[in-house]
Amino acid sequence: MPKPKVVLAFSGGLDTSYCVKYLSQDQGMDVYSVTVDTGGFSSEEISQIENRARELGVVEHITLDKTQEFYEHCIKYLVYGNILRNQNYPLSVSAERVFQAMAIARYAQEIQAEYIAHGSTGAGNDQVRFDLAFQILAPELTILTPIRDQQLSRQAEVEYLNKHNVAVEEKTTLYSVNQGLWGTSVGGKETLTSHQSLPEEAYPNSLKTQDPQDIRLGFEKGEFKTLNGVSFSHPVEAIRALQELSEPYAIGRDIHVGDTIVGIKGRVGFEAPAPLMIIKAHQLLEKHVLSKWQIHWKEQMANWYGMFLHEGKYLDPVMRNIESFLWDTQDVVNGEVFIKLAPYRFELLGIESPHDLMQSRFGSYGEMNKAWTGEDVKGFTKVSANPLHIYYSVNPLKAW
Amino acid sequence: MPKPKVVLAFSGGLDTSYCVKYLSQDQGMDVYSVTVDTGGFSSEEISQIENRARELGVVEHITLDKTQEFYEHCIKYLVYGNILRNQNYPLSVSAERVFQAMAIARYAQEIQAEYIAHGSTGAGNDQVRFDLAFQILAPELTILTPIRDQQLSRQAEVEYLNKHNVAVEEKTTLYSVNQGLWGTSVGGKETLTSHQSLPEEAYPNSLKTQDPQDIRLGFEKGEFKTLNGVSFSHPVEAIRALQELSEPYAIGRDIHVGDTIVGIKGRVGFEAPAPLMIIKAHQLLEKHVLSKWQIHWKEQMANWYGMFLHEGKYLDPVMRNIESFLWDTQDVVNGEVFIKLAPYRFELLGIESPHDLMQSRFGSYGEMNKAWTGEDVKGFTKVSANPLHIYYSVNPLKAW
Amino acid sequence: MPKPKVVLAFSGGLDTSYCVKYLSQDQGMDVYSVTVDTGGFSSEEISQIENRARELGVVEHITLDKTQEFYEHCIKYLVYGNILRNQNYPLSVSAERVFQAMAIARYAQEIQAEYIAHGSTGAGNDQVRFDLAFQILAPELTILTPIRDQQLSRQAEVEYLNKHNVAVEEKTTLYSVNQGLWGTSVGGKETLTSHQSLPEEAYPNSLKTQDPQDIRLGFEKGEFKTLNGVSFSHPVEAIRALQELSEPYAIGRDIHVGDTIVGIKGRVGFEAPAPLMIIKAHQLLEKHVLSKWQIHWKEQMANWYGMFLHEGKYLDPVMRNIESFLWDTQDVVNGEVFIKLAPYRFELLGIESPHDLMQSRFGSYGEMNKAWTGEDVKGFTKVSANPLHIYYSVNPLKAW
Amino acid sequence: MPKPKVVLAFSGGLDTSYCVKYLSQDQGMDVYSVTVDTGGFSSEEISQIENRARELGVVEHITLDKTQEFYEHCIKYLVYGNILRNQNYPLSVSAERVFQAMAIARYAQEIQAEYIAHGSTGAGNDQVRFDLAFQILAPELTILTPIRDQQLSRQAEVEYLNKHNVAVEEKTTLYSVNQGLWGTSVGGKETLTSHQSLPEEAYPNSLKTQDPQDIRLGFEKGEFKTLNGVSFSHPVEAIRALQELSEPYAIGRDIHVGDTIVGIKGRVGFEAPAPLMIIKAHQLLEKHVLSKWQIHWKEQMANWYGMFLHEGKYLDPVMRNIESFLWDTQDVVNGEVFIKLAPYRFELLGIESPHDLMQSRFGSYGEMNKAWTGEDVKGFTKVSANPLHIYYSVNPLKAW
Repeated sequence: MPKPKVVLAFSGGLDTSYCVKYLSQDQGMDVYSVTVDTGGFSSEEISQIENRARELGVVEHITLDKTQEFYEHCIKYLVYGNILRNQNYPLSVSAERVFQAMAIARYAQEIQAEYIAHGSTGAGNDQVRFDLAFQILAPELTILTPIRDQQLSRQAEVEYLNKHNVAVEEKTTLYSVNQGLWGTSVGGKETLTSHQSLPEEAYPNSLKTQDPQDIRLGFEKGEFKTLNGVSFSHPVEAIRALQELSEPYAIGRDIHVGDTIVGIKGRVGFEAPAPLMIIKAHQLLEKHVLSKWQIHWKEQMANWYGMFLHEGKYLDPVMRNIESFLWDTQDVVNGEVFIKLAPYRFELLGIESPHDLMQSRFGSYGEMNKAWTGEDVKGFTKVSANPLHIYYSVNPLKAW
Repeated sequence: MPKPKVVLAFSGGLDTSYCVKYLSQDQGMDVYSVTVDTGGFSSEEISQIENRARELGVVEHITLDKTQEFYEHCIKYLVYGNILRNQNYPLSVSAERVFQAMAIARYAQEIQAEYIAHGSTGAGNDQVRFDLAFQILAPELTILTPIRDQQLSRQAEVEYLNKHNVAVEEKTTLYSVNQGLWGTSVGGKETLTSHQSLPEEAYPNSLKTQDPQDIRLGFEKGEFKTLNGVSFSHPVEAIRALQELSEPYAIGRDIHVGDTIVGIKGRVGFEAPAPLMIIKAHQLLEKHVLSKWQIHWKEQMANWYGMFLHEGKYLDPVMRNIESFLWDTQDVVNGEVFIKLAPYRFELLGIESPHDLMQSRFGSYGEMNKAWTGEDVKGFTKVSANPLHIYYSVNPLKAW
Repeated sequence: MPKPKVVLAFSGGLDTSYCVKYLSQDQGMDVYSVTVDTGGFSSEEISQIENRARELGVVEHITLDKTQEFYEHCIKYLVYGNILRNQNYPLSVSAERVFQAMAIARYAQEIQAEYIAHGSTGAGNDQVRFDLAFQILAPELTILTPIRDQQLSRQAEVEYLNKHNVAVEEKTTLYSVNQGLWGTSVGGKETLTSHQSLPEEAYPNSLKTQDPQDIRLGFEKGEFKTLNGVSFSHPVEAIRALQELSEPYAIGRDIHVGDTIVGIKGRVGFEAPAPLMIIKAHQLLEKHVLSKWQIHWKEQMANWYGMFLHEGKYLDPVMRNIESFLWDTQDVVNGEVFIKLAPYRFELLGIESPHDLMQSRFGSYGEMNKAWTGEDVKGFTKVSANPLHIYYSVNPLKAW
Repeated sequence: MPKPKVVLAFSGGLDTSYCVKYLSQDQGMDVYSVTVDTGGFSSEEISQIENRARELGVVEHITLDKTQEFYEHCIKYLVYGNILRNQNYPLSVSAERVFQAMAIARYAQEIQAEYIAHGSTGAGNDQVRFDLAFQILAPELTILTPIRDQQLSRQAEVEYLNKHNVAVEEKTTLYSVNQGLWGTSVGGKETLTSHQSLPEEAYPNSLKTQDPQDIRLGFEKGEFKTLNGVSFSHPVEAIRALQELSEPYAIGRDIHVGDTIVGIKGRVGFEAPAPLMIIKAHQLLEKHVLSKWQIHWKEQMANWYGMFLHEGKYLDPVMRNIESFLWDTQDVVNGEVFIKLAPYRFELLGIESPHDLMQSRFGSYGEMNKAWTGEDVKGFTKVSANPLHIYYSVNPLKAW
């Protein structure tokens, strides 16, 4: 009788290494491990993960490169929508996790697995993102979650692996770092408190220059396409180039505090210079080229999009509808945004766009006006005041 | 026959000085000038304005101190709501202008004036804020707006005043600076373009220290009450103390780009360290003590409040309703927020609050959980997936 | 050793009768049964339920009258907010279930029970409402749900009860009817389909008159207080009087289709003449006395309030904040609304209110205007057109 | 010297007849009259209007048939969005007025007119809709509004026309009726009050049958396409067929109360059986085929769309974005809706759709469930309760 097939989301870390052994040895399953690259791995890291998988004895390991899909179906909209969860977090990890889960669910269906497994613990968001994607896209598969079910300590996992002749590297850092295309998250003992911030050394980059630098970010229909006038083969490359350029400035750091999907409050540090600069630049450009109500509604829709993405509800059909809305707003979002990089901070200087609605020929703020008269404004304010003039004729204004 | 009475909003600047002379000399009116102090003037400045008014020959000049009212009926809610227009502007000038206009309208009614005048030009937001408040609160008065109607150049105004033996100081700065309790706005030739930022010297403060400093902001029911543990006689004093403390760091600067009430896009610089730190600190505290949906709805309501305040619609009764909503959310917003001041930037370090919902006894993000089991989460995700599981059983997922 | 105490939400029906026997006989517990009256029971029904409980051998039965609390903390806000779920359903059952669950949780804590039980099945909303209230208010208690866990057929429950010498009445109706103060819900074989409507006989009332009748509903600060000019000791009595008056007209029927909390779509009929008339009348009155933006925001907030109440999230603190908002809007919602009752329908005729903002002295719609001139409107439209005039100067209008 | 050209929006009524004479005789202009047909005129009415124009001596009269455009660019979205202003008014007149104004502005540009005129009074919404469209699309033209400017009584207009040998028909009705494809509005002395409803005879149709009738409305991707299984050459024809079928039932009447664009409250009756049935049927179908959050967001977006259309802001680019959103939601809105017509009312019976998400194989509301267990729901409610369980552990629940 053939062994049951299980597809395992594999990162090469301690938890998923434990899962390989546990599923194959204790559960007697054929383990197919999958690593989904959404742009956060170097090719070296990919090789290391593949080697680790083989070492652990998987039947087969596969790396699925979903970077382009991740960009096209997700990051693009995060930029269109200027999406920062709770006003500051670019969803660095949440977004990619959902795409990884979906790719794994599909792969499991393709190879006709009976089980699908992930190594998330029971206290975070990732378990929910994986579970949801699996249950929606592959409801016929049974989900296995050894780490969540067994609640083992790190020590117990190490011992189990050693017992099975698997070497485990010493933990070299006190911080749990999760690097992705759209930013890096950092957790550690400080983020388990409410009052401490992460120390300098917890972040992936450190300050390497004191010299400010002016740069230009170019947008075409809302997508970040050029850096200092240089084009790239794909927006993903533009993001990487901006990331590299900005790393010496140690910018784009902050701490995200928010509600986890399981209902507790969570706190996590992040460093995401490129995403933050792209979003802030894009947003400034939009202030010049979109109408007041486009900006207003984009904010509502995009906030919701970010929340649902964060919470693993990417597959709700309303998300496709919001994408259509956001996409439709981007036709005129063309131009360049000027930014100054400085140690630990960046500054938005201004924009240039053929669609700029702030043009002196239509009148300048605070200057003498051209397109209308004082009489026009008098009429405007007279009629605008009507509803409240009536309201306070009927209902006396309360004194204060 | 007695001369007609006109009440004039008076700032002591060129435009309103012109108005005094024009209204008294050319229009033959008795000019009652009013300056409303909403916390932005020093007592010296108040004296200078009063002297100027008398010099210009007003029948009477009065200074109305509305700082407390401005705080109680406006700034408090800007803090409750974390209100930043277009995500970055603390409404430094807009808010106070509305309160000034309302105080002037009431004064004009008290002294039974027939006319009410302001010196705004025809291209900005202030004209609308004044007109609206006057038309709503004092619809029986005729509004006079000499500057808007006559569209005079600075040179013409100076000549007119000189002709009437009024000396006009040389313009000493290239920037138009408007200082208030809730921040200072700065306009200049750069802000008339879309691509230039303001130079260092345009801002009221300059960098005076390189030494970082950790400070603590204390909130009680959402109001900023203590600085580094020190209490103040009134929150206005706390704001002033924080402002003073932060000035050497040259922080809280940015450029606001947005839609003016008259429909053109406008751009204006500002420096508002205290307002920005208070709002950001308050917001961080709220992330720890409010529920996800309180945060969600506060954002919607507060955005609207900010927009309407900006646009002079403070008197819409919905504003009182939103205030009730915001106020009702602040009961648990107590605690301290830790901030690091550094040159040109500040960093939120963390918070401490008796109402903090992030407490390890309820489980910690990413750590082993205590309050629920893996089975519970499985049930949670199973049921949560139901609607989408059904949706994609009925409607095939589009390939991508 | 004393038997463990369990508090059971008891309705006297088959399911909860089964629960009494099962918990006492099979589980060896002391059953304390509770019926919470939120205004839907007659005193006869209360007696019958109490007798049934004793007959089944509960240790103690208690009836908690929470009608006033239900009105004060819930129905009042449903009226303030004109709340109809999915535009037509007055939340007839959902609202009271949450209040029953909360009262039972508190009672269980008072008598220091270890267990708390409800008889809901596993396919509806009520199970979630009970579970949530119990877990939030009494997390220390263990929840028991025999019906949900055992998934017994009606036949099996009857046999079990017969075996324990409990007589069960023949089922006399094909429809499951749930009567409450705020309307009656009706389920049956038709509501399990998408295409059939309920037959006449499924509804609690039938048409008994052909004669139209004009009535007047009086509101004070948003609360329904008088019917045809007659006052009542409490708004609950006013609701009951209106209900009685309208029954012969067989009005207020419809079918609610919506998402259940467990993610499937559900369909249920209802008959709720008084709630529907009160809400529609209140809403019409508000159109006359509130500002455009009060109406706009009330709709947003109230929709959310209705959704959360429906889904058992009444205890989210944002609900209290929304209540503050809604309450604050009702100061001017005073006056009478005129309604014509006719067979199967009612018609809103008009209103009378001291706060009516539609008064000819301010100008009449479509008539000659008084308060402003054609020039004023020209200025108004000129300035209002500014943003779009500019937009289409910069971006050509797409042809169509 | 050639006379100046003026393009006049012409309806054949008293006001626009006066305008023709006034502009040609008193102002010495060449009048080009335009009637834009958006589906509300019969061919007879079109002929009468054309004859009237010639009789009055216009240089040229043209009828622009914009019915298809009106459907494609407006009515379609009103259906997609289930748009009822203030919850009951299908925007019967507002929508078409904007399209008429746009067509006239373009025609005026084509024939290179210098002036553009409309006959609206100064107290309604139409003046604003015309002004806005003209100022946005043809800012180079001067707008003339003789009726608004001169504020003439009906009697004065009749006399002026008689003086110029133009016969004016006796007024045959006390009601001002405005018939369009999307409904008929009715104003009269009752609608100038707040408390009176329109009498039977004010409405265009009267009750002609007592026999109920069951009908079926078929939708394809959200558009109303078939009636009782019969297809039509164009949705406009389907609307007309439904309108004709429903007229004997005297249904679809109500009174709209709302804020006019000029700030006063207005009240107007309407009869719109086809629009109301189409919208209510479409909405019911959506309750079965869309996700909860699609329904939620559609409501927000569609409300705004309706408001902006009503207020003549159709050209705001956000309207195109909202259209994209609404359009994108309609892919699955296919199926039939069953309706019963009865005197003065209609009843939604149910729906049938291949995309119906309410299917018993996924579990039935209130019945035994199939797709999940009681344990799953326990986990679901346990985790869902987490945030509030924590909240009330930290903050005690206030007693009530």
